[in-house]
Amino acid sequence: MTVSDFLLALIAIFAAAKIFGEIAERVGQPAVLGEMIGGIVIGVSGLHLVDAHSPLLQILSEVGVILLLFLIGLETDVRRLLSVGGASATVAFVGVALPLLGGIAAGRALGMPPVVSLLLGAALTATSVGITARVLADLGHLKSDEAQVILGAAVIDDVLGLICLAIVAGLAAGQTLTTWSVAKMFIAAFGFIALALVIGSVLAPRVMALITRLRVAKGLFFASVMFAFALAWTADFIGSAMIIGAFAAGLILARTGRGADIEHEVHDVAQFFIPIFFVLVGAAVDLETLNPFEPQARRFFIIGVVLTLIAIVGKVAAGYASFGRPLRRLVIGVGMVPRGEVGLIFAQLGLSTGLLTAGLYSSVAMMVIVTTLIAPPALRALLKPVVDEKRSTVSELITESLADASDRRQDERRAG
Amino acid sequence: MTVSDFLLALIAIFAAAKIFGEIAERVGQPAVLGEMIGGIVIGVSGLHLVDAHSPLLQILSEVGVILLLFLIGLETDVRRLLSVGGASATVAFVGVALPLLGGIAAGRALGMPPVVSLLLGAALTATSVGITARVLADLGHLKSDEAQVILGAAVIDDVLGLICLAIVAGLAAGQTLTTWSVAKMFIAAFGFIALALVIGSVLAPRVMALITRLRVAKGLFFASVMFAFALAWTADFIGSAMIIGAFAAGLILARTGRGADIEHEVHDVAQFFIPIFFVLVGAAVDLETLNPFEPQARRFFIIGVVLTLIAIVGKVAAGYASFGRPLRRLVIGVGMVPRGEVGLIFAQLGLSTGLLTAGLYSSVAMMVIVTTLIAPPALRALLKPVVDEKRSTVSELITESLADASDRRQDERRAG
Repeated sequence: MTVSDFLLALIAIFAAAKIFGEIAERVGQPAVLGEMIGGIVIGVSGLHLVDAHSPLLQILSEVGVILLLFLIGLETDVRRLLSVGGASATVAFVGVALPLLGGIAAGRALGMPPVVSLLLGAALTATSVGITARVLADLGHLKSDEAQVILGAAVIDDVLGLICLAIVAGLAAGQTLTTWSVAKMFIAAFGFIALALVIGSVLAPRVMALITRLRVAKGLFFASVMFAFALAWTADFIGSAMIIGAFAAGLILARTGRGADIEHEVHDVAQFFIPIFFVLVGAAVDLETLNPFEPQARRFFIIGVVLTLIAIVGKVAAGYASFGRPLRRLVIGVGMVPRGEVGLIFAQLGLSTGLLTAGLYSSVAMMVIVTTLIAPPALRALLKPVVDEKRSTVSELITESLADASDRRQDERRAG
Repeated sequence: MTVSDFLLALIAIFAAAKIFGEIAERVGQPAVLGEMIGGIVIGVSGLHLVDAHSPLLQILSEVGVILLLFLIGLETDVRRLLSVGGASATVAFVGVALPLLGGIAAGRALGMPPVVSLLLGAALTATSVGITARVLADLGHLKSDEAQVILGAAVIDDVLGLICLAIVAGLAAGQTLTTWSVAKMFIAAFGFIALALVIGSVLAPRVMALITRLRVAKGLFFASVMFAFALAWTADFIGSAMIIGAFAAGLILARTGRGADIEHEVHDVAQFFIPIFFVLVGAAVDLETLNPFEPQARRFFIIGVVLTLIAIVGKVAAGYASFGRPLRRLVIGVGMVPRGEVGLIFAQLGLSTGLLTAGLYSSVAMMVIVTTLIAPPALRALLKPVVDEKRSTVSELITESLADASDRRQDERRAG
């Protein structure tokens, strides 16, 4: 990809994100739904302006989701997250178990071998935390109890999904699994978050004290971004997910008392990268694979419908497993529905190892597309947008209108 | 390059930029000098942490210099630029002619064929506007008359350099040149800027009016960035330089009356990308090629010294060619000295077409390194840093200390 191709791709991505985001907002939907639809319009199913599989764009979209989870971590109070930890854990475990078992049962009922059935089940497990978090931010609901349960559950769920992925990848490669190897994965994944929080909470205030003595421009910004990238890298290195490292980085820095300053510093750069992620999610969608009127595709269309139903029912049921304080359990269940890029990673693993045929890949892709696209409007139907003064910075920045921003700037100038 | 490699590279780049930028500031030098030295430390001559030739990093560094020139264009009043246009044009033409003729003469004196001599001369022509503009911004001098002459001259000089490049590339490919083909290049290059300014000035206010009616987040930011990218792409498409398109985009938007708002919106993202450019300039420097104690390298070291002297004397003399109002002509000449990446493009063309041996490539690279590294401290010695309240936003943002930023933020909060 040359620089000029890259500039054109960025122009197309930003134009799609902003035009369709604007339309979504005007019809009362979260902007993120518009961004994904904008991606479909410029991607493989539409104008072919952007190749969602370009390595360069993939990397930048990954930076976008890392920065999104970092910002969401910054807005999350780790004590509140832990206070609903029981409910989160139940939602996560039930929400992984039901779709996993459902997927395996469906695969076996359709006469597929055990390892293929396991792959189908595993592909149904992991929630895409980015999409739900973004919808909650768009609607100004990131601070609600339900959002806390969803965030906690989505993080646990992502870890469980990665463990499923490692198991399936191992079986696909012909390895045998021991209880110990599975236990090791659990320990590495959950141990990382615990350790990061403990060590980070000790180190972060010292680093912050050092940064305030720097003279160079934007020291706080660069220190925070480097910290988020470093934890994302570490999480990836020990076999966890980058976004979990980035989320942990946000949780840690939120406790330094500079969380609001850091959000202020990082948000403009995050706003640049985040739409790349959501537009590419849409751009990768191949609507051809969903055509029920093509005879060869019909069988896989029906399998796709079955997988989609299992995916939705499993997560909505898991929402009702949240216990304790009064919670809107349907909101939690619906919030766990989108599978986003996580389901596609399973599907691609299946395709590359030969476990999934192109047809079954389309069935999984259909489940991913439908769960991802229905969650934003469904959440919007369940939640009234919050438009008060105390909205969180992420929400505010994501949905602020230019008029507001311009007013605020004039205030700042008068103050300066 | 995987995502995790990319995160590590970014961490190394930002750490090098900020640590060495901090050191440079503390010893009274422009931060950009520190960033380039930081690049040398982590690049091919040092720790090998970053590969300056990675396509991904190259593209992002190009985005950095595009955004830098866009911001500088936003800060530039096109009428003031035109008011010193005569001086700029003289400086540019003399500053291209003297090094070109000097380089050709040196090549012929050393017994090289005419086309190689022409390439050596051409490699000495073009100033790297990014480096000087950044130094002037670091020192708070972007609004001075001298800075206006330098900016104007550097833009003209870049266009002349591109025309030289096209001519040399054509000759290297065995084409014959006609007066008409050279004239066409002149018309395309200068016509683009004139046309962009005229059409842009008509369209931009209408687009701004449309943007203020948008609801989506950061409409002004995305519209401005897309405009800058689109003009950079167009400039490249018609055979001019991307940075000239980006500079023209800044000049146009500066005239809409929203220039300050746009700067405010774009600067954080620019701050993310700009250091990538300057660190990679340093990371590409191979100090091995400059070792005068290695017998085989000595001849090319001496040629490098000769080229460097021609490069410096030619531009400093060109500074004295600026006429009209009282100006600090030495500042202008020194400001035109850094050759940066532009000289390296010529050297790489020479290497890839076989016109330059590896030894002569090192001589040209040495000229580029020395002119690029001496200009920031030399300008610093000639100019006292401006630290008053009226510093331009680019300068302010580049060198503001965290303490100031934090104070300002508290003021904003009290105001909000």
